[in-house]
Amino acid sequence: MDIKDKNILIIGLGVVGGSYAMALSGAGYKNVYAVNRSESSVKKALEMGIIKGGSTNAEDFAGSADIAVIAVYPTGAEECARNLGRLMKKGSLVTDVLGIKRYYSQKISAVLPDYIDYVPAHPMAGREKRGLDYASADVLKGANFIITPIDRSSSEGIEAVRQLAKDMGFGKIRTLTPDEHDRVIAYTSQLPHALAVSLINSDEEDSNTGDFIGDSFRDLTRIAEINADLWQELFIGNRENLLAAIDMFTAQLSSIRAAVEDMDKESLVKQFEKSSARRQSLIKK
Amino acid sequence: MDIKDKNILIIGLGVVGGSYAMALSGAGYKNVYAVNRSESSVKKALEMGIIKGGSTNAEDFAGSADIAVIAVYPTGAEECARNLGRLMKKGSLVTDVLGIKRYYSQKISAVLPDYIDYVPAHPMAGREKRGLDYASADVLKGANFIITPIDRSSSEGIEAVRQLAKDMGFGKIRTLTPDEHDRVIAYTSQLPHALAVSLINSDEEDSNTGDFIGDSFRDLTRIAEINADLWQELFIGNRENLLAAIDMFTAQLSSIRAAVEDMDKESLVKQFEKSSARRQSLIKK
Repeated sequence: MDIKDKNILIIGLGVVGGSYAMALSGAGYKNVYAVNRSESSVKKALEMGIIKGGSTNAEDFAGSADIAVIAVYPTGAEECARNLGRLMKKGSLVTDVLGIKRYYSQKISAVLPDYIDYVPAHPMAGREKRGLDYASADVLKGANFIITPIDRSSSEGIEAVRQLAKDMGFGKIRTLTPDEHDRVIAYTSQLPHALAVSLINSDEEDSNTGDFIGDSFRDLTRIAEINADLWQELFIGNRENLLAAIDMFTAQLSSIRAAVEDMDKESLVKQFEKSSARRQSLIKK
Repeated sequence: MDIKDKNILIIGLGVVGGSYAMALSGAGYKNVYAVNRSESSVKKALEMGIIKGGSTNAEDFAGSADIAVIAVYPTGAEECARNLGRLMKKGSLVTDVLGIKRYYSQKISAVLPDYIDYVPAHPMAGREKRGLDYASADVLKGANFIITPIDRSSSEGIEAVRQLAKDMGFGKIRTLTPDEHDRVIAYTSQLPHALAVSLINSDEEDSNTGDFIGDSFRDLTRIAEINADLWQELFIGNRENLLAAIDMFTAQLSSIRAAVEDMDKESLVKQFEKSSARRQSLIKK
């Protein structure tokens, strides 16, 4: 059976789940269904024509699903997987979209029966806003997609998730172990969010800073407008890696601070030249 | 005499000086001249039609200038001002574009004779790249412009600089004392640059991070590609304010770190909600 004819069930019509529904329907997937806690998003998705059917109850669609995508908040993932495990058929496939992998992949895997395949994944796209209203197939286009297979993941399952990502328009599709993923993501995603939040919170309470900001400040604080519930889960769920990333960052900032204090021009120039070269090579890749 | 008929002399055809020349010519200023160390940029500016005349020697145009704009690197500003002071006529006006004000305004003021007016200013626009090739009138459009008058600045001079800024298309034009300016700019400009540099330099040497970055990392490190010579001058020239800003930031980051280490969800949510509210109100202003 062509993958586009399979029954795809998305659990959670938030920004990511909603964007998946749009992108898959747009790519010609004919049987995209969704389950969502609130009925209003289900209705809206039906009106938009991005799902073929939807419900607030997983029992309505999980039994016939070939592939299910867990697109709920991290702390809701285990409960969601338990339900799917109870309802889904033999040979079906579960994937997810969680931003940290080791901790939650273990939780999900533990409650899924062996006869259901499971391939964890992380689409590196999202919005600071929450909910279906901010979903868009465009945010997925060209974004990085990381598959983090675990022991039970079958090669057919991995291939199917890769195909979904490709069809949704993702750019680079890479494979990492869950541990590698979490180490890298602490640095490239959680740490930047911690910095943006710290930067904007370090302003004096009654200042009129807004009148005096340039593009750099605007860029660096964009992500300080943050989904608090989601990100506390991501921060704490990736605790050790994030602490290590913060400490590596702090060492670098201390080095700049020391150079400023000592008026050490050579040291500053060296650090700036290093950052310029690294930024160029990093973004080029 | 209408300000657009006055002789305007720009010293330094870098990104900012070049953008000034483009914006002023574009706004109908008829007599824009430039002096630049290297002849190639002078030639190029003449070919582009953004200056009426140019030279590598200030003596060729300073004597007839009504307004001179010091658009050289901070550490070259004093020498440049000394030349202008020797050459410019009574009643003429000097302004500048330096990114820190107290230290350099004192230096410049000290070498300008009393019969020349002096109004320091900071156009909050620029590029990470250097040189006339990256100049553009567009980067000035809507950007913040800060005038930092000192005791000797006349109200006519302040008004003239405000008019220049308005005609070049700047957005909010505000007045601050040099001390206020430097405190605010340490936070909104130098600190973000220190963070971006530290972030990219804290990566492991041989990592393949580039494959796994999202928009947030890209945004936060854009300014890590930095003009090393200029920014070491800005960092060290605003030393005390920058050290204070780094310390305020570090206290906030430590607070996030502690919450992650203690798995204190409530504290994280509180900090994220604060940053979200602040970002919204800051950017709206």
